[in-house]
Amino acid sequence: MSAEINIQRLHSKEVGFKETLMSSLSLPMADDDAIDAAVVKILAQVKERGDTAVLEFTKQFDRLSVDSVSQLEISSQELEKAYQSLPAEQKNALDIAAQRVRAYHEQQKIEAGCHSWEYTEADGTRLGQKVTPLDRVGIYVPGGKAAYPSSVLMNAIPAKVAGVSEVIMVVPTPDGARNPLVLAAAYLAGVDRVFTIGGAQAVGALAYGTKTIPSVDKIVGPGNAYVAAAKRRVFGTVGIDMIAGPSEILILCDGTSHSDWIAMDLFSQAEHDELAQSILLCPDAAFIEQVQASINKLLPEMPRKKVIEASLTNRALLIQVQDMAEACEIANDIAAEHLEICATNPRQWSELIRHAGAIFMGNYTSESLGDYCAGPNHVLPTARTARFSSPLGVYDFIKRSSMIEVSEAGAQTLGAVASTLAHGEGLQAHARAAEMRLKK
Amino acid sequence: MSAEINIQRLHSKEVGFKETLMSSLSLPMADDDAIDAAVVKILAQVKERGDTAVLEFTKQFDRLSVDSVSQLEISSQELEKAYQSLPAEQKNALDIAAQRVRAYHEQQKIEAGCHSWEYTEADGTRLGQKVTPLDRVGIYVPGGKAAYPSSVLMNAIPAKVAGVSEVIMVVPTPDGARNPLVLAAAYLAGVDRVFTIGGAQAVGALAYGTKTIPSVDKIVGPGNAYVAAAKRRVFGTVGIDMIAGPSEILILCDGTSHSDWIAMDLFSQAEHDELAQSILLCPDAAFIEQVQASINKLLPEMPRKKVIEASLTNRALLIQVQDMAEACEIANDIAAEHLEICATNPRQWSELIRHAGAIFMGNYTSESLGDYCAGPNHVLPTARTARFSSPLGVYDFIKRSSMIEVSEAGAQTLGAVASTLAHGEGLQAHARAAEMRLKK
Repeated sequence: MSAEINIQRLHSKEVGFKETLMSSLSLPMADDDAIDAAVVKILAQVKERGDTAVLEFTKQFDRLSVDSVSQLEISSQELEKAYQSLPAEQKNALDIAAQRVRAYHEQQKIEAGCHSWEYTEADGTRLGQKVTPLDRVGIYVPGGKAAYPSSVLMNAIPAKVAGVSEVIMVVPTPDGARNPLVLAAAYLAGVDRVFTIGGAQAVGALAYGTKTIPSVDKIVGPGNAYVAAAKRRVFGTVGIDMIAGPSEILILCDGTSHSDWIAMDLFSQAEHDELAQSILLCPDAAFIEQVQASINKLLPEMPRKKVIEASLTNRALLIQVQDMAEACEIANDIAAEHLEICATNPRQWSELIRHAGAIFMGNYTSESLGDYCAGPNHVLPTARTARFSSPLGVYDFIKRSSMIEVSEAGAQTLGAVASTLAHGEGLQAHARAAEMRLKK
Repeated sequence: MSAEINIQRLHSKEVGFKETLMSSLSLPMADDDAIDAAVVKILAQVKERGDTAVLEFTKQFDRLSVDSVSQLEISSQELEKAYQSLPAEQKNALDIAAQRVRAYHEQQKIEAGCHSWEYTEADGTRLGQKVTPLDRVGIYVPGGKAAYPSSVLMNAIPAKVAGVSEVIMVVPTPDGARNPLVLAAAYLAGVDRVFTIGGAQAVGALAYGTKTIPSVDKIVGPGNAYVAAAKRRVFGTVGIDMIAGPSEILILCDGTSHSDWIAMDLFSQAEHDELAQSILLCPDAAFIEQVQASINKLLPEMPRKKVIEASLTNRALLIQVQDMAEACEIANDIAAEHLEICATNPRQWSELIRHAGAIFMGNYTSESLGDYCAGPNHVLPTARTARFSSPLGVYDFIKRSSMIEVSEAGAQTLGAVASTLAHGEGLQAHARAAEMRLKK
């Protein structure tokens, strides 16, 4: 007999359910004043002293001692060699993943409005928007234990599909340890340059530029608390992606799935991090018991069982609901990063979902397929931000300029309107600029 | 004779031109630790004590003393009355502006990828994205001297076009002074509820919700330094738009325009703010002299001449360039909020522009037409952020969910790939979740 793993149970009909749920979703804000203060100093040094500061911090934090930043650059030959040296199975898997991620994002580029457009009005006035890719993008890739080649693909491929000319990757290599899978992924994704630097110093170098490292227009990719704090600080000088919280999965199950599959899907978020959150919503009390039994049975086999158990006991919830429609309502309140709908007719329920980073439909769609190779991006909004934000996509690597060409005739009608409104706002130069274009 | 207004002159062929230009573009970072500290306290109070705190701060900062927050709400009848009571000319101008802004954003909704999409692969796997509007949006509208009805239209209409169910506007009314044009614009734009609150307390109320004021999913709209600091602080709990810097105009002129028109267009940014920036790039030295003469001649007539003169002498640049192609290169370095191309063939040059918030083409397209009624949004990226960000648009009020439905056949091929990659990353539960779906 395996031991009972202690997971919090809730029932949606309990008094105060929604309050309990909401408080279970929130994490105490990290008190990171010390981190922020350290980051401010590092950024100021990098801004002021450029390469010299980058070398000093890399020696201090990563124990890598070199004479120049150019020695920290990995050549494209080395990237290709890392790829060519992979075992065949890994190479093939990475190929397929890259190809599928690229295909999805190429479709996204077409569908998600990443093109210029314009229309002409009766008087000849032309209005529209011009879409251009960002010039240069920086991708932060964590080193050490969380070195994920899949993240390299998911961050770099949408940028390249968008048409970004230069993608610069930074990845710390503490003590010089390089991850060949990460370098191979950089090669496959078409990353242009790679520097083995990390931490706030890497973020600063990308934001401000140094003699060796060019400044970029946007920095994306996950990192530790120092990297996150540095990204917040340089936002405005450059664009940034979302600051990701711990990973989350929410499973809606009508009771027709395999309890072992559900248990393993819950584990697959839980194994990321002790603060990751796995939640099951199910109307079938007996099935919830089966999932608990599967958890108890399967956990001892898992290499990362300590992390999984900590995550499950800290933050997981097994919630019994009245029916699947109510489960969908609750799912909208949770606005999860990953939402699995394990049900016989998943589309019936996905239509009711308004807020989720990604929706995995049907019993064969394990969330882990989406993490690696289904095609859609695995960088998704966490911590209820799916209420207002989207998966990382091609649209994050383009920007738009409004195009306005008013004809002489158009300037007559619009000029009168603008003049009236500008006077109403007390902005007389605005009014005069419009009036000057009116025919006498 | 009018006095010479002192404006900095540059020539692109001078040694060190680019450095001088770049340092002229940057503003010293405001040292707003005191503001930030005050904002943190206000937000904490609003989060903890809700309506009571909102009432106290509104009494303290706006000298408005009421018994309940519901007394600070303006009914839809009052909004409509404000609109119906406008003088005919203003009412008509506001109608036309609203109609044109709506038409442009409806076109944008179609063109800019604000629709769901999906495709099916050979094995039956379906991939796509679902687009949904945000549920509830808050719009901050400044009170007092910078109360701009055009801003109400520009912020609220894209939200409504996107399909946002509830748009909640907050506008401070110090001493109870209400701006009828602002209320009329709220009526026309379809704002659902209006509260006369402002400052960090209004941002807090929208972010956290109080008993009377519902929490929103995103807060947009301009505000003073306290509002900007509060928006930065609540980001993550809710979405926010860009934090706008001082307004900017960059004019590229081939010398074929009217110097008075160019001078007035430069004024129309300068009159916003002593920190606003107006720049002219022109290959024709004689035309630059004509513009200087027009500035000297026209400035004394302007009601806001003090602000204009301060802005021009602080921050304006008249830059002689070698030719228009070089002007376009420099324009890409500047990445201006507003870019006017006053030339005989503006399209020849706009094709060379990669970075600008909005591009105004041809001599009849004064920037002020875009501010009020051309149709495109007047909320634009400032401070070189057009390198990576876009005008406010319908796309800011929708979000996307990835849709993934892997068929049983798809789970076989994808499962093998995911398993290999997950093992490579040391995430065995991810691997097992995929492997469990493989047929034996």
